[in-house]
Amino acid sequence: ARELLADADFVLHDALVSAETLALCGPDTRLENVGKRGGRASVPQSETTARMIELARLGHFVVRLKGGDPFVFGRGGEELRDLVAASVDVVVVPGVSAAMAAPAAAGISLTMRGVASSLAVTAGEGDAPPARLRQLAASADTLVVLMAHGKLKAITATLVDVLGHDRPAAVISSATLPEQEVVTATLGSIAEEVRRAGLGPPATLVVGEVVAAAAANHRQVVALASFG
Amino acid sequence: ARELLADADFVLHDALVSAETLALCGPDTRLENVGKRGGRASVPQSETTARMIELARLGHFVVRLKGGDPFVFGRGGEELRDLVAASVDVVVVPGVSAAMAAPAAAGISLTMRGVASSLAVTAGEGDAPPARLRQLAASADTLVVLMAHGKLKAITATLVDVLGHDRPAAVISSATLPEQEVVTATLGSIAEEVRRAGLGPPATLVVGEVVAAAAANHRQVVALASFG
Repeated sequence: ARELLADADFVLHDALVSAETLALCGPDTRLENVGKRGGRASVPQSETTARMIELARLGHFVVRLKGGDPFVFGRGGEELRDLVAASVDVVVVPGVSAAMAAPAAAGISLTMRGVASSLAVTAGEGDAPPARLRQLAASADTLVVLMAHGKLKAITATLVDVLGHDRPAAVISSATLPEQEVVTATLGSIAEEVRRAGLGPPATLVVGEVVAAAAANHRQVVALASFG
Repeated sequence: ARELLADADFVLHDALVSAETLALCGPDTRLENVGKRGGRASVPQSETTARMIELARLGHFVVRLKGGDPFVFGRGGEELRDLVAASVDVVVVPGVSAAMAAPAAAGISLTMRGVASSLAVTAGEGDAPPARLRQLAASADTLVVLMAHGKLKAITATLVDVLGHDRPAAVISSATLPEQEVVTATLGSIAEEVRRAGLGPPATLVVGEVVAAAAANHRQVVALASFG
């Protein structure tokens, strides 16, 4: 990934990509912020894709730089589909999804021999209906819900129906960043605990016995960001 | 992660960690191969953990370097639990799990608006019973089975019970490596197609409509390894 950034003619990046990462670009690389957040008006998805195709057709080596894993609730699949339809060759560099990075940063192992041998991932602010959330909770040992902050109360209420009030749960806010915060509680009380602690988005919810198995870890797992 | 390797007194690494990665270690870093594969006899897990604790107690800065994401079927949770029990402070650097990297390297997006909004991950050669596999298949839009090579015929036969013969499926072998190969077929025929193509382990199975959505991608998604 470093080499691709160093060699790129253009880097189309999201607003949340860090300055450290952008510093890996070459001296002649032109940067374009196509982020959906940030100070100015956001760039529509269709425009970003059209820009990539335009630059690629002009013979430029274009890097589309996204945070996390764009193939897990990141629209990477849509961008790739449209690029392929436009006959653009693409190299995909897998990223680290918040689905796995956020629990890891809190010392929570998603699987653990004798505790959990399967995991499911979905998004809180997407199109997954409560019925699907119930099914996932019932079938996977560990459940990870991304973008869980906005609907945390509704999500946990739905999950309590299937898993009961006492299932261990954790919410990781701003995972891996200096402002990372972790709240652990039971499924029945975590929404209230998160509210009380004042945790903001982005937040990842993890539900399952792995959270209890990791409960002792939180104090001794030093946040990567605070380590330096 | 680069800085941690550069600063480490000791790096205890798996056999499969690449020479390029090990080259990131500092000039005074001592390397110890504690891999479970490789030419010589494998090092038992308990010995690796004991060695980490011993070195940490002597005041050394120790990096445990594993491939993929050790918190997803990688025993990272067990190592962390034992280190915490021994009062060792730990920094966790999240990795890229094959569960997400293998599909990405084949151009398969695990979620896609309108196609899939949930995914489940389990392992083929673990302790997940067929009943659990059926539940996961029924509840998640996309199912990823790691270490699927050895039991591919049995796994796909179990999944056909729930999803039918025609559900799109892909097997990615040696993902992201120069020898990466991808076979796509229906769930009912993929085991035979993989056998016919002679694909070896490690292999990741992906089942779901996202595979069909990505079918056109395989030719145009240039493997990262072959790109350079």
